[in-house]
Amino acid sequence: MKKLKRSGRLVDMTYYMLQHPHEVISLTYFADRYQSAKSSISEDLVIVKEIFEQEGYGTLLTIPGASGGVKYMPKVGEKEASEIVDKLISQLAVPGRVLPGGYLYMMDLLGSPRFIQDVGRLFASVLAHKKIDAVMTVATKGIPLAYAVAEYLNVPVSIVRRDHRVTEGSMVSINYVSGSSKRIQTMTLARRSLAPGSRVFIVDDFMKAGGTIRGMIDLLEEFQAELVGIGVLVESVDVDAEERLVDEYMSITRLSEVNVRDKTIKVEAGNVLEKLVPIAEEDLS
Amino acid sequence: MKKLKRSGRLVDMTYYMLQHPHEVISLTYFADRYQSAKSSISEDLVIVKEIFEQEGYGTLLTIPGASGGVKYMPKVGEKEASEIVDKLISQLAVPGRVLPGGYLYMMDLLGSPRFIQDVGRLFASVLAHKKIDAVMTVATKGIPLAYAVAEYLNVPVSIVRRDHRVTEGSMVSINYVSGSSKRIQTMTLARRSLAPGSRVFIVDDFMKAGGTIRGMIDLLEEFQAELVGIGVLVESVDVDAEERLVDEYMSITRLSEVNVRDKTIKVEAGNVLEKLVPIAEEDLS
Repeated sequence: MKKLKRSGRLVDMTYYMLQHPHEVISLTYFADRYQSAKSSISEDLVIVKEIFEQEGYGTLLTIPGASGGVKYMPKVGEKEASEIVDKLISQLAVPGRVLPGGYLYMMDLLGSPRFIQDVGRLFASVLAHKKIDAVMTVATKGIPLAYAVAEYLNVPVSIVRRDHRVTEGSMVSINYVSGSSKRIQTMTLARRSLAPGSRVFIVDDFMKAGGTIRGMIDLLEEFQAELVGIGVLVESVDVDAEERLVDEYMSITRLSEVNVRDKTIKVEAGNVLEKLVPIAEEDLS
Repeated sequence: MKKLKRSGRLVDMTYYMLQHPHEVISLTYFADRYQSAKSSISEDLVIVKEIFEQEGYGTLLTIPGASGGVKYMPKVGEKEASEIVDKLISQLAVPGRVLPGGYLYMMDLLGSPRFIQDVGRLFASVLAHKKIDAVMTVATKGIPLAYAVAEYLNVPVSIVRRDHRVTEGSMVSINYVSGSSKRIQTMTLARRSLAPGSRVFIVDDFMKAGGTIRGMIDLLEEFQAELVGIGVLVESVDVDAEERLVDEYMSITRLSEVNVRDKTIKVEAGNVLEKLVPIAEEDLS
């Protein structure tokens, strides 16, 4: 590309970083890209890092050594994290969301790419320092969340299905007990869609007893894969402790009461805010 | 936020633009945000626009008038568009992708958030100047693509389903004929998940005769919604002209031959490259 001045480099670098989260970019790459001295690139990076940290966008991590460089880690600051949680709480509390059977209509929220991106960035923020190879979810409603997290973490997505489609080749199936209905169901994952030994983050839109997520954890074993964490958008606390099938997870919100007759619900913040990590990293040098 | 110098403003503005595509942002907003004069903001925007256009990231459009401001329109340049198409062609041609029945395994591609984002940006680029209110797809495999396009266009997603879930309230169902199997099937969309009168872009991962997409078009009528365009990742040309149920669409790639015995396929570029729009817009002033 054309030789760029600092102002141009800062715009291009910011764009490039956002397109390549969690990827180590060498200073040489930028120096060649902009036909600039590495010392100038280093100064640029200090400016980008300062703004990112100050505004709560994340940070740049310096990776030392021959294969080193700089890595953009998307993060969310405490203030923005609270805003995301509060937004979901107030949106969930809108009347008319309660459906027959006590289900909640959530497709308006799940159908908003920007909201989903925010939640994805919040999960990715908490996971910033963990080694993760893949994000897993179950079709259908968890899919957008899984992609949002995976995009920020720069890893692939594995989609578990409740039906058996002929179009994905050899499949691994397991049976699981749906926590609330106690019925035995089947879930499947294409053999090729998760590398053996992967370290996996599981995400879903809703968790009650956690049967579906428990099923996905069992599925991980079939792939010799390892669970790194679980994230849900909404957890229902209307579950007896001994019925809960999943222990450790993070949730954006917690649904404490659903009144089907009045069509009202009570929602509170989940535990994700307790798990936030600081934005700033050690200085670039 | 703190008063920022030009270098800081350029980093923050670039970040902000990327988070808010297809949204009109007033100069006053930026002037207040950075405690800077509007004349300085205008100069900043000229720099951002120049780099975005030069590097093929899109453009900034000036919206005149009292409710005016600047709008970031993500676009893809010819060179990058060709690279995206070529990448898909070479990835599809990898042996072992052909499954029994002549289906193609594509979850490795569909499971890559960055690739999906690129394709989404390519579709959004072609659609940059069209008025679009929603992106529609059918579960499951079209979902990531739909979110990627919708994110760049700043509109919501409507997910049509082939099953009937109790958790989405009142649903609208239609019957459609699956083009290849000729069987009658049902697809449903939650009443609340598409605003009546919406202008809709339909996207899916694969199209053969187009029966599924034809079904979605029929569903649009039930919502008094209007079709603005159709995009598919892979179209199969192994269809008689009279069997084709959809006329106007754009495709990233075209599958011309699937040899189940040899497990080989032939793929070529779709028509999306013919539909690209120029990146540059009239000068900011």
